[in-house]
Amino acid sequence: MAEFIWRRRVGFGDCDPAQIAYTGRIADFALEALDAFWEDLLDGQSWFAMNVEAGFGMPFVHMDYDFRRPIAPPEPLFCHVVPELLGTSSVTLAVSGRQGGRVAFEARFVSVFVERPGLSKIPVPGHIRAALEARIGQG
Amino acid sequence: MAEFIWRRRVGFGDCDPAQIAYTGRIADFALEALDAFWEDLLDGQSWFAMNVEAGFGMPFVHMDYDFRRPIAPPEPLFCHVVPELLGTSSVTLAVSGRQGGRVAFEARFVSVFVERPGLSKIPVPGHIRAALEARIGQG
Amino acid sequence: MAEFIWRRRVGFGDCDPAQIAYTGRIADFALEALDAFWEDLLDGQSWFAMNVEAGFGMPFVHMDYDFRRPIAPPEPLFCHVVPELLGTSSVTLAVSGRQGGRVAFEARFVSVFVERPGLSKIPVPGHIRAALEARIGQG
Amino acid sequence: MAEFIWRRRVGFGDCDPAQIAYTGRIADFALEALDAFWEDLLDGQSWFAMNVEAGFGMPFVHMDYDFRRPIAPPEPLFCHVVPELLGTSSVTLAVSGRQGGRVAFEARFVSVFVERPGLSKIPVPGHIRAALEARIGQG
Repeated sequence: MAEFIWRRRVGFGDCDPAQIAYTGRIADFALEALDAFWEDLLDGQSWFAMNVEAGFGMPFVHMDYDFRRPIAPPEPLFCHVVPELLGTSSVTLAVSGRQGGRVAFEARFVSVFVERPGLSKIPVPGHIRAALEARIGQG
Repeated sequence: MAEFIWRRRVGFGDCDPAQIAYTGRIADFALEALDAFWEDLLDGQSWFAMNVEAGFGMPFVHMDYDFRRPIAPPEPLFCHVVPELLGTSSVTLAVSGRQGGRVAFEARFVSVFVERPGLSKIPVPGHIRAALEARIGQG
Repeated sequence: MAEFIWRRRVGFGDCDPAQIAYTGRIADFALEALDAFWEDLLDGQSWFAMNVEAGFGMPFVHMDYDFRRPIAPPEPLFCHVVPELLGTSSVTLAVSGRQGGRVAFEARFVSVFVERPGLSKIPVPGHIRAALEARIGQG
Repeated sequence: MAEFIWRRRVGFGDCDPAQIAYTGRIADFALEALDAFWEDLLDGQSWFAMNVEAGFGMPFVHMDYDFRRPIAPPEPLFCHVVPELLGTSSVTLAVSGRQGGRVAFEARFVSVFVERPGLSKIPVPGHIRAALEARIGQG
């Protein structure tokens, strides 16, 4: 499958007094990668466009991270995003964060689609299901 | 067991265009609660004191979150921190985030103790083991 | 005048590899204090309530900070918020951040009131003008 | 003078319930641009390398921002960094943030060089003075 890769600089402001990237910032890195993944997959429809313009959102119901090695400047971080599971209303994506060719963390995210502003659960929108199936079909 | 509860205001800057607290900020809330838990348990020895003054740290090897309900202003968030497991070199803590009396998220964190700056694994420091066992023993 | 004081823990995640609070986080501390100031002054009407419920906002047109001393754990930071100037559409507030009894930074913020979602400039809403004048009058 | 331009995606997590980039995040964008500027100018010596490896830092003594227009997805933000003034121990840099070809904010930053970990003021290190003068000389 065609992988989506999000490249990101790791800066001073992302690091903590232990002189490695702060765990809370690593969570942000993976989330940024997911937002960029959707924008890429859906021809510009990022989380912002979904929520502000299109009347739906996809809040998280679960996320988990396994941290394999510390992240620190100066090398960039590459987040590899792979869709794993497509349910009736939910989608599961995996993010693998790599620095210097080695896996720094592996994470998994489950989101449920909801209408806005009511936040009731809805089926995966048709254009998203189609785009995900096409992307997975390239595998 | 005596629970540690961390109270936190949820502000405008913690929320996203869906007008609820951003997932990345919720990760930060739970981490803040853990840092405050250690400071309370260890008579002021927070993560900062461990890393900058005491020559050891406790980086995360795993964290997971289950999100039950959205978090939004104006009510404060209460993070309840409970130690769950104490290993040779590692410790597992649970954080339950509650707003308006209802559980908003449940999270679990596994850290491994390391010496600084080398980052080699070490046994749980004696004063931390003693403090955790005393706290758990109150249960 | 009755000062508003916002107390905040300074944590590990707020600090950078220089082992002091990161400049970007200090900006956030002052902004949090302003949000809390309005919520206190306006009986619960924080920036969130203004923007999401009340149909207006108060985006910044200017902010400046002078940093006097580094901020670091373990002492809490106290942000003192003082209204300085009330114009037709704008308001200027000063924030003084103090740690251990000494001034760590001084900042000044100018906001303009706008209607939502159009973002056109509006006069300072009547209830805000009245509350500010009453607060200043206590001086 | 050769301008340094830092390009950055503006994401969902950078925006607030007013559905524009949060002021605190805009502060971070400009700081990121400065960190990247130094890394570029000094052949890889970013703030992290200065503080963690080279025994000096350059904390801010002043920063100010004028906000001209709101920032929001989907267009990238371009931060143009220009050195303005080089003193004995201090340096002043300007950052202009542009989106869609229009200026969104203008900011100015004054830093003072200090040795680490003592934080006493030092003269601008020779290699930094030389690099800045060479860069300015290209103007």
